[in-house]
Amino acid sequence: MTSFTVIGHTACTDASFPLDDLPGKGGRMDLLCRAVASSLFLSHGIREDTTCDIMLLGQPHPGRIIRFDGSALRSLSPDERNIASSIKRALAIPAGKTFREAGPGLLTRKGTLADQLSEKHYAVLDESGVDIRKVATEELPDAFLLSDNRNFSDDEMELIRDIPKYSLGPAIVHADHAIVLILNEIDRRRSGWI
Amino acid sequence: MTSFTVIGHTACTDASFPLDDLPGKGGRMDLLCRAVASSLFLSHGIREDTTCDIMLLGQPHPGRIIRFDGSALRSLSPDERNIASSIKRALAIPAGKTFREAGPGLLTRKGTLADQLSEKHYAVLDESGVDIRKVATEELPDAFLLSDNRNFSDDEMELIRDIPKYSLGPAIVHADHAIVLILNEIDRRRSGWI
Repeated sequence: MTSFTVIGHTACTDASFPLDDLPGKGGRMDLLCRAVASSLFLSHGIREDTTCDIMLLGQPHPGRIIRFDGSALRSLSPDERNIASSIKRALAIPAGKTFREAGPGLLTRKGTLADQLSEKHYAVLDESGVDIRKVATEELPDAFLLSDNRNFSDDEMELIRDIPKYSLGPAIVHADHAIVLILNEIDRRRSGWI
Repeated sequence: MTSFTVIGHTACTDASFPLDDLPGKGGRMDLLCRAVASSLFLSHGIREDTTCDIMLLGQPHPGRIIRFDGSALRSLSPDERNIASSIKRALAIPAGKTFREAGPGLLTRKGTLADQLSEKHYAVLDESGVDIRKVATEELPDAFLLSDNRNFSDDEMELIRDIPKYSLGPAIVHADHAIVLILNEIDRRRSGWI
């Protein structure tokens, strides 16, 4: 099982955001939608052993987590608008501190970064980190934390200070592209390609 | 310079396709938009040494090519809707057999796959191909041909029969994700990471 958590620092937490303006009124919801697609879609199917949690920190109710669970998802398409529709569906139900189902493979709860980090063995991506291709397979973590177009905040940096840092290559890429590279590395290790 | 050509077998060739239905009425235009974004966007900028040609083969005028040229693009955002707006702008101008500008870094012409293949040293992706990580740097091609969610047609297969075939890993991924993996490999070679 591989898990991704992507922080959306400005992502809207009210179900009323318009599907026609994901970058603006959605608070860069477009980027989170692409991160979900990168986490879950293969050419002809869904990665059933992968989850993608997006952490929405925008107004009006910052601190909402929405989980897309590949093992249970049904009828999700990879386009931004379709994934954003699922996000709206999840935002439309009341959320407490434990996950509640908003649809097959679509779960939501309130939560903080500290909550997320306490649940799994996370790594983050950092240009000064160890090249992921050089990390021993048994050391690869189960969970990866990524940020949207903003850098981690000072508070977030404090929380992730001591967790492993990996780099993916010389170019700094968007979160959705980083997820593609991580999954390729994991696929190769699991299948004995490396 | 790295060039991508992505075939959109059903992609609409009339500027009137709705931005609200890129997968359906757009003929999987969503996938082509994501391929453009994967080709051109870094975390903080555009890949100026990269072009992405999308080849639209849907109705009503199959055989339209739209080029996004990273060296000249201005004010493009990575979300599907924004890129689709540029595609609509390019489709709205008449096209002949040579490229014509529809905006900065946005060019269009009529053309066939044979035309494209005659212009550069192409490779295609194929699960039975040579692992791209094992290809010598000097043998890496300048141009890559990819297909949308459909396989290459019989006619296309005939045209690409003799060009090099590379694979990216054990999992078969969407065209936009394949582009991310190719560019990472090229970035690593150019920067001496491998």
